[in-house]
Amino acid sequence: MMNVDNEIKLTPIGFVRVSFSEEEIKKSVKGVSGIIEVLKEYSKGLEGIEEFSHLIIVAYLHKVSGEQRKVLKVRPRKWVRFGIDISDIPEIGVFCTNSPHRPNPIAITIVKLLKREDNVLYVEGLDLFDGTPVIDIKPYTWSRHIYDIKLPKWYENLMKRIKEKLGLNK
Amino acid sequence: MMNVDNEIKLTPIGFVRVSFSEEEIKKSVKGVSGIIEVLKEYSKGLEGIEEFSHLIIVAYLHKVSGEQRKVLKVRPRKWVRFGIDISDIPEIGVFCTNSPHRPNPIAITIVKLLKREDNVLYVEGLDLFDGTPVIDIKPYTWSRHIYDIKLPKWYENLMKRIKEKLGLNK
Repeated sequence: MMNVDNEIKLTPIGFVRVSFSEEEIKKSVKGVSGIIEVLKEYSKGLEGIEEFSHLIIVAYLHKVSGEQRKVLKVRPRKWVRFGIDISDIPEIGVFCTNSPHRPNPIAITIVKLLKREDNVLYVEGLDLFDGTPVIDIKPYTWSRHIYDIKLPKWYENLMKRIKEKLGLNK
Repeated sequence: MMNVDNEIKLTPIGFVRVSFSEEEIKKSVKGVSGIIEVLKEYSKGLEGIEEFSHLIIVAYLHKVSGEQRKVLKVRPRKWVRFGIDISDIPEIGVFCTNSPHRPNPIAITIVKLLKREDNVLYVEGLDLFDGTPVIDIKPYTWSRHIYDIKLPKWYENLMKRIKEKLGLNK
């Protein structure tokens, strides 16, 4: 609901459960395996979901502090994982990044669905910490594929350097 | 922030401005053109965004009522736009659909960014009504492409029927 102060109120529909530490998850390149435990009261909303191979998980990053929500410019740290020096990453607006430090700390994570057991989804590809509230789940379909995308020059350059590091030049 | 009642509070970072009616937007297959007016206080967060061709808009569907938030099973109506009879669409859990009627009415819309003028983004591909609060903006990058996706049989069948109707058999 949105009240006169423009405040939007949401409630978790479930929670992420993973057995990896936050450090392990931060370092992971492809994400980790884990489960999404949907609250029993929303189980009906999952009916048929086992027929989709991938899901879009919308989560609320509850560990982000009030101060971190004020950040508007960042050097996106995800590149560091791939061996890029932080000083080689430009400082840009948060809305150009997936940084968790942003005004509304919402994450969009695409996961592979391995199986469903009632209200529990077994997934791969999580970059979310244990206990993260999930606010929505959507199917991943072809409509999410955009082909004619253009990325910033600095982004393309970093991608190229990473491919070289990994021996993926083509 | 999340309080003891598990309530998540967010505030809009901007609003959708479109000159099309809700009916026109609902009927639109590719979405409509419009602007995203980001609040001045968040302008810095947009710096560099003009170098991305596509953005992911996370919006709060403020017109969805409390009753509509209780819906857990639906026949996804988007297919009707393409000439499919509503009775040919299965009733499935809301989390298998992009229906606006869901516990947390959050939309994820991928738009094409035409230009930025300070805090105003001119975009194409909006399926959001005029005045919809935007809660986050993220860049659309190759990491959002998943190739090995599998969809339900009923979904594939409806896609096939639509392609036949549109003469897109291949």
